[in-house]
Amino acid sequence: MAELIGNMLVAQSGGPTAVINASIAGAVQEAGRHPEAVEEIYGGLNGILGILNEDLIDLQEEKRLAVEGLKYTPAAGLGTCRYKIDFKKKPEQAAKDMDRLFEVFQAHNIRYFFYAGGNDSQDTSLKIHEEAVKRGWEMRVIGIPKTIDNDLPHTDHCPGYGSAIKYAATTVMEVGIDVGSMATDDGSCCIIEVMGRSAGWIAAGTVLAKRGDPAAPPHIILLPEMQYHLQELMDKVRETIAAYKYCVMVVGEGIRDREGREIGADETKRDAFGHPVLAGAAWKLKEFIEAALRTKTRTVLLGYSQRAAAHCASATDAAEAAACGESAVKAAVAGQSGFMVKIVREQSQPYKWSTALHDLREVANVEHFVPREWISEDGFLPNEQFVEYARPLIEGEVKAPIEGGLPKYVVLEKARLEKKLPPRA
Amino acid sequence: MAELIGNMLVAQSGGPTAVINASIAGAVQEAGRHPEAVEEIYGGLNGILGILNEDLIDLQEEKRLAVEGLKYTPAAGLGTCRYKIDFKKKPEQAAKDMDRLFEVFQAHNIRYFFYAGGNDSQDTSLKIHEEAVKRGWEMRVIGIPKTIDNDLPHTDHCPGYGSAIKYAATTVMEVGIDVGSMATDDGSCCIIEVMGRSAGWIAAGTVLAKRGDPAAPPHIILLPEMQYHLQELMDKVRETIAAYKYCVMVVGEGIRDREGREIGADETKRDAFGHPVLAGAAWKLKEFIEAALRTKTRTVLLGYSQRAAAHCASATDAAEAAACGESAVKAAVAGQSGFMVKIVREQSQPYKWSTALHDLREVANVEHFVPREWISEDGFLPNEQFVEYARPLIEGEVKAPIEGGLPKYVVLEKARLEKKLPPRA
Repeated sequence: MAELIGNMLVAQSGGPTAVINASIAGAVQEAGRHPEAVEEIYGGLNGILGILNEDLIDLQEEKRLAVEGLKYTPAAGLGTCRYKIDFKKKPEQAAKDMDRLFEVFQAHNIRYFFYAGGNDSQDTSLKIHEEAVKRGWEMRVIGIPKTIDNDLPHTDHCPGYGSAIKYAATTVMEVGIDVGSMATDDGSCCIIEVMGRSAGWIAAGTVLAKRGDPAAPPHIILLPEMQYHLQELMDKVRETIAAYKYCVMVVGEGIRDREGREIGADETKRDAFGHPVLAGAAWKLKEFIEAALRTKTRTVLLGYSQRAAAHCASATDAAEAAACGESAVKAAVAGQSGFMVKIVREQSQPYKWSTALHDLREVANVEHFVPREWISEDGFLPNEQFVEYARPLIEGEVKAPIEGGLPKYVVLEKARLEKKLPPRA
Repeated sequence: MAELIGNMLVAQSGGPTAVINASIAGAVQEAGRHPEAVEEIYGGLNGILGILNEDLIDLQEEKRLAVEGLKYTPAAGLGTCRYKIDFKKKPEQAAKDMDRLFEVFQAHNIRYFFYAGGNDSQDTSLKIHEEAVKRGWEMRVIGIPKTIDNDLPHTDHCPGYGSAIKYAATTVMEVGIDVGSMATDDGSCCIIEVMGRSAGWIAAGTVLAKRGDPAAPPHIILLPEMQYHLQELMDKVRETIAAYKYCVMVVGEGIRDREGREIGADETKRDAFGHPVLAGAAWKLKEFIEAALRTKTRTVLLGYSQRAAAHCASATDAAEAAACGESAVKAAVAGQSGFMVKIVREQSQPYKWSTALHDLREVANVEHFVPREWISEDGFLPNEQFVEYARPLIEGEVKAPIEGGLPKYVVLEKARLEKKLPPRA
């Protein structure tokens, strides 16, 4: 391996998680152990967008306690973005962006680049790696996996997922016993909508709240991977209420009907990536149930709270997230580039894991779904195979310091680097 | 005071809270200290509805650890109901119900009756007390306050409220820094809708997430007590985004426009108490903002989670809830009837409180609102007076045991009493 000495740049992208900052902490702390390779440790503000604007900060100016505190602090400590370098849809802009990125890399002698994110961000990492090779700019690029959606391929699971389902399962358990305690002969239904546009990992994870008890909520979990016959679903809700006087249902936002149409889609609106905006699955189902069964139905829409709820984060997840950041730096210093760190499950009981590398070309833009064989035959609940998979991921509690009854999260100082380039055109 | 020896019946009513079970635990444990007065300790399942059906359980059959565990267990451990004995709207049914209740009381020699609930439930307690006097059935009736809405009068605050705002403020803080970390020049808005039909106590309580920092989320808090000019609100959102690149807004479900109309009301639907069903304030405001400001806006609807989230309960709140249950039993054993237990604030810093009694005739059906002088002049945030009031209520963390990464809540055995009466007609 050729020695490479220079500066490191780390940034975050896409929707935050409760533990994405732990990956940054891990990367920064590991970089500090390699003064033979890493000279300065920079952070890019708001992901690629901030790097394009040369908005960089000096992470060695941060207090050590602040960096350590990132391990219990939610959101993106460096800021994040949804900006995509899109060679397919906007080839001219993408080419300009790539030129600008390398101007910034060169101006600040960036030789190590780490990007924590989901599918789109791994794609960005791959493109930057390929461009670096093409342009002959010696720089090592490693992607750090991050997404509550858990839809990255090849990694056993994604940092952020364990905390998301620990929080979601806790909430579903608590709402479930609340609704159960209100249950009288009138019957009632509660629908909890969780994130998951095309992969149902978060919804599926709430099955842990049942602790294996068929009578315990949630009684029905709908995943975007399946297609549901609404009449069969109504029958299932009716049966559940007949048996228990109430029904708690968890739905992923992207669930579809028998014809494959998204139940909660508003096809008239699109987000920055061109995906349809989904926010109405629980509301649509509430209307169906109230009309079909005349059953009082309430909804809960966890929204951003499920990716931000560090007060209920999984210690296993936080440890894995930090390890992914560390492993990324170790791999780069050892000469690797063009890989994503992945989590390898060595065994489920007792749970043992390690990290490894996977070629970014096999990661970018590939989605990983809940396997059909992990879902019950009738499609209404994940089965024991899923439970075995998910159970270890929520173990352990992250303890943030508390001040005045509320978590005391870390805010970085963000000492700005002097800009060396003219503003982005 | 005349000695009164007989059985005790305790029940829960209305929407649960994270700590209503702590009141039951306090009452049951206190009753155990008065064998000279209380012979058997019964629970009524699902409130008045279960008592009408003679669905009673023997709480002395519960394990002591289970009763103690109620102090960290959310929902209504005895079950609850929204059934109302309504002498105004259904006088015949109400008279029949009252006859039946006293048949049950007499069949089981109930001499102590405790009912934990909000406004409607305190009204029920009052009526039962008055009927007992009228019928010459010697029975002592004490109401135990409970409501996350915090809208009972005369008590400084209600058990359940502190935990609701600890959870809501934690969530708003976490969602706030998440949204803030995503903030780029495009601007964004997030609206978090919390419970509160006519009183804005929960929405107001999320101001604690700011920790006094004007730049910190939430930036705007809308209360049902006020009337909002939508154009002024849009201006405020625009200013906030101009200043911080994002805006986090918390809204109570019952917020109203300049003309006093509920912004999120669906006037076509009514709940069991005849109130309009409200669930759309955040959605309506999202539509306004996206149309008026072209700003991407997301919503979070905490729903039942804000009253069930015992994993984030306030230790102060749980202790007060338990003390209210204990005080109710002490008062009744001492000869009192026709009162509600209230919490008296002795001082805010350091926080000191005690319990006292208040005549139920002055409590029932009276709502307590956030005072105008606790809200900023422009109406968009609670002020320092409110903060001083709310701050102590969220102090301390309730620790439920954890098993497999999720809280391990108590489920009562519910040993049924043999029925002595024919079924309810």
